[in-house]
Amino acid sequence: MFTYWAGGTGLGKSEERRQVQRAALIDAAEAAIVGRGLAGLRAREIAAAAGCALGAIYNLVADMDELTLLVGSRTLARLDIALAGAETSGPPDGTDAAASRLVAIAIAYCRFARDNLNLWRALFEHRMTEGRPVPAWAIEEHMRLFAHVAPPLRALAPSLNATELALLSRTLFAAVHGVVLLGVEQKTVAVPQEALEQQIGQLVRLFCLGLRQS
Amino acid sequence: MFTYWAGGTGLGKSEERRQVQRAALIDAAEAAIVGRGLAGLRAREIAAAAGCALGAIYNLVADMDELTLLVGSRTLARLDIALAGAETSGPPDGTDAAASRLVAIAIAYCRFARDNLNLWRALFEHRMTEGRPVPAWAIEEHMRLFAHVAPPLRALAPSLNATELALLSRTLFAAVHGVVLLGVEQKTVAVPQEALEQQIGQLVRLFCLGLRQS
Repeated sequence: MFTYWAGGTGLGKSEERRQVQRAALIDAAEAAIVGRGLAGLRAREIAAAAGCALGAIYNLVADMDELTLLVGSRTLARLDIALAGAETSGPPDGTDAAASRLVAIAIAYCRFARDNLNLWRALFEHRMTEGRPVPAWAIEEHMRLFAHVAPPLRALAPSLNATELALLSRTLFAAVHGVVLLGVEQKTVAVPQEALEQQIGQLVRLFCLGLRQS
Repeated sequence: MFTYWAGGTGLGKSEERRQVQRAALIDAAEAAIVGRGLAGLRAREIAAAAGCALGAIYNLVADMDELTLLVGSRTLARLDIALAGAETSGPPDGTDAAASRLVAIAIAYCRFARDNLNLWRALFEHRMTEGRPVPAWAIEEHMRLFAHVAPPLRALAPSLNATELALLSRTLFAAVHGVVLLGVEQKTVAVPQEALEQQIGQLVRLFCLGLRQS
């Protein structure tokens, strides 16, 4: 029986080659961001590094926004693994365990940011061209972050409804993000580097303690 | 008796003219940042807007870093007034008053950021050229932020020593900054705009409640 993908056609090989080239392009973009930050992502240099013609980029990705989001997708996948690793540390149940788990996740977030500085910055510095919307798949990937934060928060404050829990997850995430951001950027007003993990721990513990009392 | 600055010399008028030109230069730099952000600060355009030759900039300020810091100095002075206004609202004493005051200061910070977006961003986006140190006067101006945060925190946790209080002030500031930053930039993972002030209030209240229990 005939099928479109039946063995040995040129189409299969061509698509396979395209996927290999696309991965090489994402590799090149990732290396450029690691080396010089998001501002260092230049189409001509990426094409040269990936061994393809400048115009060929747009056969592989829709535009530079999509390429940046594809690098972000890899960063988020590694961040997800790092946070999942932190999540399973510590005792399994109870409100103390939930607070300890949130502290561990927050510190894992800080270490990931420090160890992947330019890739992590790029997740937040990237803005879509001319206010185009962020594609749904990229939004969904960002949202997976809250899969780590929401369950322990629910354990601490079981009376919250879904909307309140979602808002509180975003609030705690952004608060930790702020301490990490100013800290790893070593801003004048930041928590000093040597106290960063301790202060992130204190922020999350006070937040959890307050939540249990409220 | 003869003095160097004795009346009616050209020197006094020349210095006066220099101060007027310097203020015009800072005005032009400020307008450029308001309009196009820190990346829009270009020496040639600033000079044209201030009505001076390109080279004359460096008779008025040491370099573009100093010019950016002088704009930041104005922004910080206005932020200081905005936070001081929030500080005096609400009842004057007690730990509830201290928590309410911190909530009011945090919300005033959020409103200032939203209403002065590019100038506020520039305070944190600016990096000195080639890792040169931030001048002491600019550090001192940034530090004045904590004059608003530390006294109510001390009222909530009088047993903290000076070092702990300074670290906790930086931590709370950075946490609020993070929620404000992701929120006003409307990032995918941010607290949505319409809930921003309410969530900043919740963050600060939970932090204060935790602090009183700890």
